[in-house]
Amino acid sequence: MATDRMAPFLKGGRSMLLAYDQGLEHGPTKDFDERNVDPAFIMETAIKGGFNGVVFQKGVAERFYTGKVPLIVKVNGKTALPQGEPISRQVCSVEHALSLGAKAVGYTIYLGSALEAEMMAEFGRIQEEAHRKGIAAIAWIYPRGAGVQNDTSKEIVAYAARTGLELGADAVKIKYTGDSASFSWAVKSAAGVKVFMSGGPKAPTDEAFLQQVKGVMDAGATGLAVGRNVWQHRDPVKMADSIRKVIFENKPPSEVLKP
Amino acid sequence: MATDRMAPFLKGGRSMLLAYDQGLEHGPTKDFDERNVDPAFIMETAIKGGFNGVVFQKGVAERFYTGKVPLIVKVNGKTALPQGEPISRQVCSVEHALSLGAKAVGYTIYLGSALEAEMMAEFGRIQEEAHRKGIAAIAWIYPRGAGVQNDTSKEIVAYAARTGLELGADAVKIKYTGDSASFSWAVKSAAGVKVFMSGGPKAPTDEAFLQQVKGVMDAGATGLAVGRNVWQHRDPVKMADSIRKVIFENKPPSEVLKP
Amino acid sequence: MATDRMAPFLKGGRSMLLAYDQGLEHGPTKDFDERNVDPAFIMETAIKGGFNGVVFQKGVAERFYTGKVPLIVKVNGKTALPQGEPISRQVCSVEHALSLGAKAVGYTIYLGSALEAEMMAEFGRIQEEAHRKGIAAIAWIYPRGAGVQNDTSKEIVAYAARTGLELGADAVKIKYTGDSASFSWAVKSAAGVKVFMSGGPKAPTDEAFLQQVKGVMDAGATGLAVGRNVWQHRDPVKMADSIRKVIFENKPPSEVLKP
Amino acid sequence: MATDRMAPFLKGGRSMLLAYDQGLEHGPTKDFDERNVDPAFIMETAIKGGFNGVVFQKGVAERFYTGKVPLIVKVNGKTALPQGEPISRQVCSVEHALSLGAKAVGYTIYLGSALEAEMMAEFGRIQEEAHRKGIAAIAWIYPRGAGVQNDTSKEIVAYAARTGLELGADAVKIKYTGDSASFSWAVKSAAGVKVFMSGGPKAPTDEAFLQQVKGVMDAGATGLAVGRNVWQHRDPVKMADSIRKVIFENKPPSEVLKP
Amino acid sequence: MATDRMAPFLKGGRSMLLAYDQGLEHGPTKDFDERNVDPAFIMETAIKGGFNGVVFQKGVAERFYTGKVPLIVKVNGKTALPQGEPISRQVCSVEHALSLGAKAVGYTIYLGSALEAEMMAEFGRIQEEAHRKGIAAIAWIYPRGAGVQNDTSKEIVAYAARTGLELGADAVKIKYTGDSASFSWAVKSAAGVKVFMSGGPKAPTDEAFLQQVKGVMDAGATGLAVGRNVWQHRDPVKMADSIRKVIFENKPPSEVLKP
Repeated sequence: MATDRMAPFLKGGRSMLLAYDQGLEHGPTKDFDERNVDPAFIMETAIKGGFNGVVFQKGVAERFYTGKVPLIVKVNGKTALPQGEPISRQVCSVEHALSLGAKAVGYTIYLGSALEAEMMAEFGRIQEEAHRKGIAAIAWIYPRGAGVQNDTSKEIVAYAARTGLELGADAVKIKYTGDSASFSWAVKSAAGVKVFMSGGPKAPTDEAFLQQVKGVMDAGATGLAVGRNVWQHRDPVKMADSIRKVIFENKPPSEVLKP
Repeated sequence: MATDRMAPFLKGGRSMLLAYDQGLEHGPTKDFDERNVDPAFIMETAIKGGFNGVVFQKGVAERFYTGKVPLIVKVNGKTALPQGEPISRQVCSVEHALSLGAKAVGYTIYLGSALEAEMMAEFGRIQEEAHRKGIAAIAWIYPRGAGVQNDTSKEIVAYAARTGLELGADAVKIKYTGDSASFSWAVKSAAGVKVFMSGGPKAPTDEAFLQQVKGVMDAGATGLAVGRNVWQHRDPVKMADSIRKVIFENKPPSEVLKP
Repeated sequence: MATDRMAPFLKGGRSMLLAYDQGLEHGPTKDFDERNVDPAFIMETAIKGGFNGVVFQKGVAERFYTGKVPLIVKVNGKTALPQGEPISRQVCSVEHALSLGAKAVGYTIYLGSALEAEMMAEFGRIQEEAHRKGIAAIAWIYPRGAGVQNDTSKEIVAYAARTGLELGADAVKIKYTGDSASFSWAVKSAAGVKVFMSGGPKAPTDEAFLQQVKGVMDAGATGLAVGRNVWQHRDPVKMADSIRKVIFENKPPSEVLKP
Repeated sequence: MATDRMAPFLKGGRSMLLAYDQGLEHGPTKDFDERNVDPAFIMETAIKGGFNGVVFQKGVAERFYTGKVPLIVKVNGKTALPQGEPISRQVCSVEHALSLGAKAVGYTIYLGSALEAEMMAEFGRIQEEAHRKGIAAIAWIYPRGAGVQNDTSKEIVAYAARTGLELGADAVKIKYTGDSASFSWAVKSAAGVKVFMSGGPKAPTDEAFLQQVKGVMDAGATGLAVGRNVWQHRDPVKMADSIRKVIFENKPPSEVLKP
Repeated sequence: MATDRMAPFLKGGRSMLLAYDQGLEHGPTKDFDERNVDPAFIMETAIKGGFNGVVFQKGVAERFYTGKVPLIVKVNGKTALPQGEPISRQVCSVEHALSLGAKAVGYTIYLGSALEAEMMAEFGRIQEEAHRKGIAAIAWIYPRGAGVQNDTSKEIVAYAARTGLELGADAVKIKYTGDSASFSWAVKSAAGVKVFMSGGPKAPTDEAFLQQVKGVMDAGATGLAVGRNVWQHRDPVKMADSIRKVIFENKPPSEVLKP
């Protein structure tokens, strides 16, 4: 059962994951500083911040994963440099992810890309292999390309969520639509597949970000996979605590941030 | 024998299938509402409506298929977002479909696409594997692309049906030509391959849709694979009853709809 | 030995094959009528007409092949719909063709296509597999594409024939050049590979067609693979008899057609 | 050791090969006449002419190779018809070449083609397989494409030779630069890989051709692979004798041709 | 552990490698002269110069590797001739590299190429296979293509280094940024992956090159892979000695070069 496969990452059905594949996807200079360029710092933050899972590419997992937080290995990836229709191919086998201790594999599908079919087919094979081996397959679904005008519209975000269901993902990581009501349509479209908001770039204020998290949880989502809003934060562990209160205790952001 | 392989879906040589892969092919917002976005509602409709088969992508089958209606797993699929020549690749193995209880696999070929050859070759392999494992291979054949002017002309619909025969499909799902006489040419071109009309978008009136079904059956077809005209209907089970009467009892739509 | 592999299709070193893959290659509406759309009629014609072989795609063979005439299964194919450089990929395994009773597999190579290399490589694999399993590999070689001005010139037809030799085909099916003298150069270029004329569209008169056959045989060819000129004929069995007299008895068309 | 693998083709470290894949590469009409269109004539010429090896595509080898001269099977090939960037793919397995009695496989790489990488990767696999099975892998290296201005310049011919070394070829077949001094740079670049001149089109006079051969040998090459300059010659065996005297006895062309 | 896999190439955690794949990547005429065109001279220089490793393509290793210096086999490669987006594919299996005595395989990824995904996926498979067999996988990472303005900027060099980490390379070979401070950001981004500077074209003076080496070592790198600056040098062994003093003894270039 899909629920069982996601169990390592859930607490009361909810979850807070720490994402750290930006070094490949965006490059170190765009997102990192002297502190968070170091994966050891992230691993430490994942533990101290009480995260329910941590997302690494295989190379980072091989060198820095310490086993104290459940591991998701991203098995495809691309840099931000190539132009043209986006394509991200498998760079890590499911077998290898498993040998690193992964409890799930993550795979990005650029929905709407002219090469969408390549990624959907590859995810299809990975999902079956992961399930045969007893671990979860999580789909990062990002609509992109000439056919996609607005990648955070209610319609397109729900389409991303639904694709995760149709292809047999255990969970999807999708962008936030901006409000809870419209995001709840994506959650409904996922029909039981665990929905994680993609944290996105650093929000202008902590409250702004926590409001997003609240909206996401109110919509019925499982939680979020956050990166920059935590490890770019002055005090990552404190920020993680704040997020956790919104996710697991349903607290309003204003109360959480009260000094 | 092909007939034997389709037997699970036939009653007196006729059949009424419930299709539900629109979440992937069209997106949830375009086709679904709060009720039919839920696959459990569809599964229930398939049972209560007395359908002879239900069509799901693997993810939906994994979570919602209850085993009471014979299952067809769609093993390829695409979203409506990519532009350019249509291509849909295998996302589910025949082995996996079988493990979900499928009695048939479904595969879409976009006839006339510049990538037609990729899909025909992939269907060729799937057909042989499905047959080795004792289940049917059903071809969704949709002519599309620069070389196709009118995808419901008598010529093109017959071409789609014939391609199913030539490639060894047990059944084809094709569009309606609009009249029974021309559709009977497609049925003849299929030369024994079971012909199912693709239900298409919601018809303006129930009678309009039932007239199509009647025309299809009069042409010698096996039945239809219907989705939106049932689960977008105010009363899906009643609509299913009406369709069934046309298919299995040869009743004229006007009589069927008589209050 | 290649000769041995073609033996099932030869009588005194000559041969008359009945081709029936036009349903896929051209579409049923273009080539068929109410009578010849039915593969059973073709199978019957093959028997009654005394053909030395019959050519079917796997789907037709699966349903209509009765075993009384040696079978050639066409293992690739395309529709007439896609635009751009022609490509036809394998849709039937050699293993499967064998299980249907095939004594040969047929494969089309579009010489001069930008995708020529894909087809030549695929034929290369099929040829070796067919020979390992003891059946013949017949190449349909049709020059086509931007680099081909005239696909019935002496030069280009000889090039097609020669390619069959170089790639290890047991026989080639090529177009007629229009006269026996120039066609004999193709036969010489084939250097022992059995040469079959491709029957082509219905000729204006029976005599016109029989003159082609005579020219082909005078050039030293093995025979022809004929479709439309037989099964579009008012009296297919009689037309088959006429052709047979030209091929096997060297009779001039005028004598053959004498009432 | 590479030297051992080429030993079947060497006499005192030198070699004269007869090439006959022009039927595929150029077409029969361009290069052949009534006599040399027949592979049996070529096989006989190879024997009578005292050649150290003969080059055939698999189809010709299957039907005409008699085993009296060591065999090289060309395992890729293309026609002259397709336009655009050149690509030639594997049409014969190493296993099959071996079963035909080959002591070496030959493979063409179009250096500089946009598809160069495909051919280099395929040759890489073939080289390893050939060596595992104990036979030589010979690279035909022909620079071609938009990035290649002059395919017989000193620089480009040396690049071709060097590529053979880097990729592990036992021997390379390359074009002549036009003079011995510049060709010696190609030989040095090959660093021990046996260098064969590609014979090219029929030279205006026998002496002109023999001067090329002399220049090639003076540059330290192993020999040449000649086709048209022998089998288009009025007296192929005599021409072969002349070439042999230049290659193996270092005789000047003027002396060789003395009546 | 990655450190263990690189141990054959390290002395006190530092390393000086001799690179010699320019014959394929640039062509012999561009980079070689009568002396260094000979791989035996390079092998000798590797030994006499006290190098910690030598980089060859398989063909050069097969003929010239003598086993006295640890071997890195480059397993992909391309020529400088093709135009368009750069792509370099695997030409040597990991198995074969191992049979040649390799303690590491090297693979080039053109970051930013439209075909980046092909190379990242292929490296992903090679890395896992190399590690299973107990040898290191070293990534040559060269940003190139329309999306890359300046391939030696701090940002892009750090991106290259980081990609090596993310994909699980044991070491990366990257270009120098031009100053030690900015290069140290690349070293940090690599987060423990051994960083080697790519030697690049012959520097104007020995001191200029040694200053680069000093900057690289001051930035915390492991060493460099040098080719032209050694084997194009008048006295390669002396230049190797000078470099070694900078790398292993931290000596300033001015002192090293003092007569």
